[in-house]
Amino acid sequence: MNNNLRGRVTIPTDSNITDDIKRAINLWGADAIRDCDGTKLDESILNLGVKVYSTYLTTRSDQIWANNNKDELQELYLMSEPSIAKSELLEIDIMKGYYKEQFKVDTIHDEKKWWQVIDRTTGKTIENNKWILDKKNMKVIIKDATLWHEYTVNFLVYMIWDPTQMYNHITNNWGDKPHELPYDCRQPKTQKHILNLLDNWLENNKDVDVVRFTTFFYHFTLCFNEEAKEKFVDWFGYSSSVSPLALEEFKKEKGYELKSEDIVDEGYYNSPFRIPTKAFKDYIDYQSKWVAALAKEMVDKVHYANKEAMMFLGDNWIGTEPYGKYFESIGIDAVVGSVGNGTTLRMISDIPGVKYTEGRFLPYFFPDVFKEGGKPEEEALENWIQARRAILRKPLDRIGYGGYLGLAMKFPKFLKTVEKICDEFREIHENIKGDKAYTPKFKVAILNCWGKLRKWQTNQVAHALWYKEIYSYVGVIESLSGMALDIEFISFDEIKKNGIPEDIGVIINSGDAYTAWSGGEYWKDSEILEKLRKWVNDGGGFIGIGEPTAYQYEGKYFQLSDVLGVDKEIGFSLSTRKYNKLEQNHFIIEDLKTKIDFGESMKSIYTKGDNSRILAMEKGDVALSINTYGNGRAVYIAGLPYNDENCRLLLRAIYWAFNKENDMKKYYVSNEKTECAVYEKVNKMAIINNSKEEQETEVYINGKVDRKIKLNPTEIKWINIK
Amino acid sequence: MNNNLRGRVTIPTDSNITDDIKRAINLWGADAIRDCDGTKLDESILNLGVKVYSTYLTTRSDQIWANNNKDELQELYLMSEPSIAKSELLEIDIMKGYYKEQFKVDTIHDEKKWWQVIDRTTGKTIENNKWILDKKNMKVIIKDATLWHEYTVNFLVYMIWDPTQMYNHITNNWGDKPHELPYDCRQPKTQKHILNLLDNWLENNKDVDVVRFTTFFYHFTLCFNEEAKEKFVDWFGYSSSVSPLALEEFKKEKGYELKSEDIVDEGYYNSPFRIPTKAFKDYIDYQSKWVAALAKEMVDKVHYANKEAMMFLGDNWIGTEPYGKYFESIGIDAVVGSVGNGTTLRMISDIPGVKYTEGRFLPYFFPDVFKEGGKPEEEALENWIQARRAILRKPLDRIGYGGYLGLAMKFPKFLKTVEKICDEFREIHENIKGDKAYTPKFKVAILNCWGKLRKWQTNQVAHALWYKEIYSYVGVIESLSGMALDIEFISFDEIKKNGIPEDIGVIINSGDAYTAWSGGEYWKDSEILEKLRKWVNDGGGFIGIGEPTAYQYEGKYFQLSDVLGVDKEIGFSLSTRKYNKLEQNHFIIEDLKTKIDFGESMKSIYTKGDNSRILAMEKGDVALSINTYGNGRAVYIAGLPYNDENCRLLLRAIYWAFNKENDMKKYYVSNEKTECAVYEKVNKMAIINNSKEEQETEVYINGKVDRKIKLNPTEIKWINIK
Repeated sequence: MNNNLRGRVTIPTDSNITDDIKRAINLWGADAIRDCDGTKLDESILNLGVKVYSTYLTTRSDQIWANNNKDELQELYLMSEPSIAKSELLEIDIMKGYYKEQFKVDTIHDEKKWWQVIDRTTGKTIENNKWILDKKNMKVIIKDATLWHEYTVNFLVYMIWDPTQMYNHITNNWGDKPHELPYDCRQPKTQKHILNLLDNWLENNKDVDVVRFTTFFYHFTLCFNEEAKEKFVDWFGYSSSVSPLALEEFKKEKGYELKSEDIVDEGYYNSPFRIPTKAFKDYIDYQSKWVAALAKEMVDKVHYANKEAMMFLGDNWIGTEPYGKYFESIGIDAVVGSVGNGTTLRMISDIPGVKYTEGRFLPYFFPDVFKEGGKPEEEALENWIQARRAILRKPLDRIGYGGYLGLAMKFPKFLKTVEKICDEFREIHENIKGDKAYTPKFKVAILNCWGKLRKWQTNQVAHALWYKEIYSYVGVIESLSGMALDIEFISFDEIKKNGIPEDIGVIINSGDAYTAWSGGEYWKDSEILEKLRKWVNDGGGFIGIGEPTAYQYEGKYFQLSDVLGVDKEIGFSLSTRKYNKLEQNHFIIEDLKTKIDFGESMKSIYTKGDNSRILAMEKGDVALSINTYGNGRAVYIAGLPYNDENCRLLLRAIYWAFNKENDMKKYYVSNEKTECAVYEKVNKMAIINNSKEEQETEVYINGKVDRKIKLNPTEIKWINIK
Repeated sequence: MNNNLRGRVTIPTDSNITDDIKRAINLWGADAIRDCDGTKLDESILNLGVKVYSTYLTTRSDQIWANNNKDELQELYLMSEPSIAKSELLEIDIMKGYYKEQFKVDTIHDEKKWWQVIDRTTGKTIENNKWILDKKNMKVIIKDATLWHEYTVNFLVYMIWDPTQMYNHITNNWGDKPHELPYDCRQPKTQKHILNLLDNWLENNKDVDVVRFTTFFYHFTLCFNEEAKEKFVDWFGYSSSVSPLALEEFKKEKGYELKSEDIVDEGYYNSPFRIPTKAFKDYIDYQSKWVAALAKEMVDKVHYANKEAMMFLGDNWIGTEPYGKYFESIGIDAVVGSVGNGTTLRMISDIPGVKYTEGRFLPYFFPDVFKEGGKPEEEALENWIQARRAILRKPLDRIGYGGYLGLAMKFPKFLKTVEKICDEFREIHENIKGDKAYTPKFKVAILNCWGKLRKWQTNQVAHALWYKEIYSYVGVIESLSGMALDIEFISFDEIKKNGIPEDIGVIINSGDAYTAWSGGEYWKDSEILEKLRKWVNDGGGFIGIGEPTAYQYEGKYFQLSDVLGVDKEIGFSLSTRKYNKLEQNHFIIEDLKTKIDFGESMKSIYTKGDNSRILAMEKGDVALSINTYGNGRAVYIAGLPYNDENCRLLLRAIYWAFNKENDMKKYYVSNEKTECAVYEKVNKMAIINNSKEEQETEVYINGKVDRKIKLNPTEIKWINIK
């Protein structure tokens, strides 16, 4: 390591490897260590002057309590698998398809009050006197069912296995290790208990400097099926935060009653892809307000004990809502989260109101990667390269790794790679001295139903996981996460309420039709259309990706097809002839050498209006096009998976859309495998090579080629700009 | 030619080519000739004993009348291009985008009564006092427009150029040849005139045996744009059949008023892809009843003059509705139409209530194909092969060609090919002696919003034209057109009214979501769902293609996803894990040797329920799957363009769906490039080779291999089955 720089790095520990820990601290310049569950640290380590983090499991550390208070376990709403009535007497096995070791039906609370039996053919809830619950067989029996209608039951279950422990248990074959039960901190008895527990713990853990809450009170939704495999996973899901108590208190606070269906949502469970209902938005507000209040009590205790409070962004993070209005009131000192890519990095590093942020990098020190013949250094380097460009925009304050340190120490190439990463990371901080990377004066806004609340969380199902249906959209925010632009996330409600903020230059609407990401029914709202049309006409830039502004209504599918200059053929206008013509040259595609990868792309897009021009087609459909609209401009892109070329394409599209082509090269590198970030206050430019090959690039400063430089594979190079 | 057989063939004629005509009659065994416009036939030809057809243009043969009665020209409703209000005073150039030589704005009828100005942002019609028509500049001026809303004008125009003549004129560069104006036979003055005209014509054309009406009163919708190119073409469109008079009479007959928007339909003009509204269905009924009544008057006159009346299925065919309830009352003797493929052939040959049907085969004898180096014989053979398999199911009575005979006579290979086609055609009739080809006892039904009215007309835009958005569905009916199955076309309304007919074994629902072909909102109708679920459960077979039963509602996209065993992911259920597993062997894919071509296929299809099995996938999505449902079965196919393999796939899917796998080989040929048709009464089987290569196939009779035979390229072979 560069011996002039130390710190900003956290390492995991392990039992009986004191020497390894010392070696790693020295090699990587670590200044903090994270204890593993049940590990006791050697005095000689504590004396090294490193900070000690300790994981704190708020909802399951006391399993005796859990077992003695099973009526205070966490609950969730499930929907039974749909059943078709083949006779008037319909029996529904409500637990069919669910993992019985994870859930136990709640037979304590009155099912007639808390459950709903719904005819999914008509959408109507069945009257309570038309069904009974057979508690012995856990079947709901419907009398007078309408033949051939489909029925489901919304029912409450207790969670009898914590999802994270269950996941690890099953994945790692922990055999007869006891299942941990999660308790619900909203229950007054349990709430008092967990606060006492924390007091005791703080008393008994004097050596700990940082309490790493993992996390607070409610887990994201994770359900397993009868074969103990994943059935449902929603990293943003609130289904596991419900209980009769929570719903009763909701009514008191919000003045109206939630039904089970407000949570179950036809079996979609308010996935963030759904246009959020008022009830669900209210529920998030209600729950996150409560979470913040109780979390604050815990954090206050930690502070009183002269320790720092850190929150892990994951697992039981539901209700913390780092970009919500209550988060800062918790007073947490730091947030740590797993860094899967640039997007997840920004999701952590942009969190407001904390003293510092920390990213846990990949790979984990687990035997699946750290095995004979494994090349963990490759994953580490890839992870670093994808994250680094985002770090240059908004750095994390710290980085770290997780898992079993002893495993990693046997891989010298890996140790070397991480050493280099740690040095590079510290060097960034050393060079930029807290300066913010240069961005142009205008901001880019991602417009969807969620706005700021889901900053860097759009189009996602589970943390950094790849899905065929999302990668062509996730590429948009992944590209933006490392671009020299200030990014906002705004919602339709905000636009309705406050209009479009002054400093926005370009608005991006990106997603599939009828999802919360593109906006669905909001595009039938004339107020939104009026505001956006006027704004573009006055000079704004609008970029649509996939099925932007889609809502079939009054002769068009893309409601802003006039702005975008394209629409999608869904069959109704096949009689209208389409005359698509391709243009060869344009600023947006100027230095693209390879064929553009539109990912899943989009079928049946065609141009509309007099000003629309096509820049690329896929199988006869428009894949990339531009339009002018008064003083404004619009760009349509069929899909934008993340890669170097698409990153550049998006950058060019943004500058073109806002009519600022001439400003793009203020600070610029010509080779799309490279990027640059400029820190004007400290007179420095970082140039990164995002590829594993040597690259040469022209470097633009103030719009002119300043020099030509060569970069080694993955290199970061620093130059002075004056 | 085979000299034992003559007849069943119609040829075109030409001026001054008497010898060629005689040669063609002799070569092809023709027994009818069709005069070209203005051609006078030689006495020596009339003495050959062939029938003479003469084209009769009902709505434009008297251009003096047309020019003297411009207030009785045909009219249509157009929608102006959408305009955005950038100020409160909005001027809309209503004719922008339309071809001014085709249309003239109707300034005779009160625009405030007949037009509508619609805010397409809200869907509301603007009050009449908020707009005026500037007749000088042909602009609609809106006062107090809502800023940034989109406005359109529904307005009436006179057609000042007959679409067919315009099309031919522009395509063939007819230069200063006068534009023909079409008159509206609903106008009492014109109506009387055309009946007189016909009387005179009949009087003056004693030599003519068959009056070939081309056609009756209203043209399908065909609009050109400012560059004299196609702007809008809907072969089924009724937009050109409107007039204030027609709408007034509609009100008298149906008891309610139609608005212009009932015809304009947001600019989709009631494309057959739209779920038909009650108003539009009423309008079709009203208009076709009127067309039938007046056409009958004309046909009666023809009969009185001892001639036959033939109708051309095309051009001005709107309102004749050969599968509607008024058609047979016309009393027409014959229908002739262009044969583009098996589907269009069946559309003609299945027409009920006529004495005979005739197909006009391709290519036309036009200079685009009959040019130096041209190979018209190839197109002729391809056309014949694709049509032949449909002929074997339901033969046309006659075939023929069109264009300039003189051109064709210079291509000896073409003459030879047509000779062979004519012989084969006559041989079919000679062999089958009017017997109907064998079909199993159960019928296959295509279920959509149109039912019987659009028999063999589903998923089409214009006659036999290829569109990327339709070919994966058109393949379904094209396959069926030549298969040994009885095909019905049924509508949702019919099912609601009468249930599912007893003799239906398999129902096919095929099309894109929300179109009339898949059914859209009908899938929210619980009555339809109940009936279909019960029917499949009792043993029916259900085949879904593309986006069958699609309508997003109550937790599912395919409303019969329980029956189909698949649903489509549109983003809301990404949190639900999909476990798709592929099966290798199944009856349906048993003899498929090549990878299945699913055409445009369908994204994001996944299996649902316990009984669903996948037979093929495309890029990670289900492309072919099966399900069992009580005693019934279902098959899902992502798309089915027409080819030999898909034909066989569909046949197998049908037999499997109805649980009749064992019956499929009653009469069967193993090689999918070949097909067979059996005529039990006459003890004959025809085996056709649909390929241009030699083929060998096993021939099954009564479920057992009877023999193995070789077929020459494109050969038809006849064998006895006993």
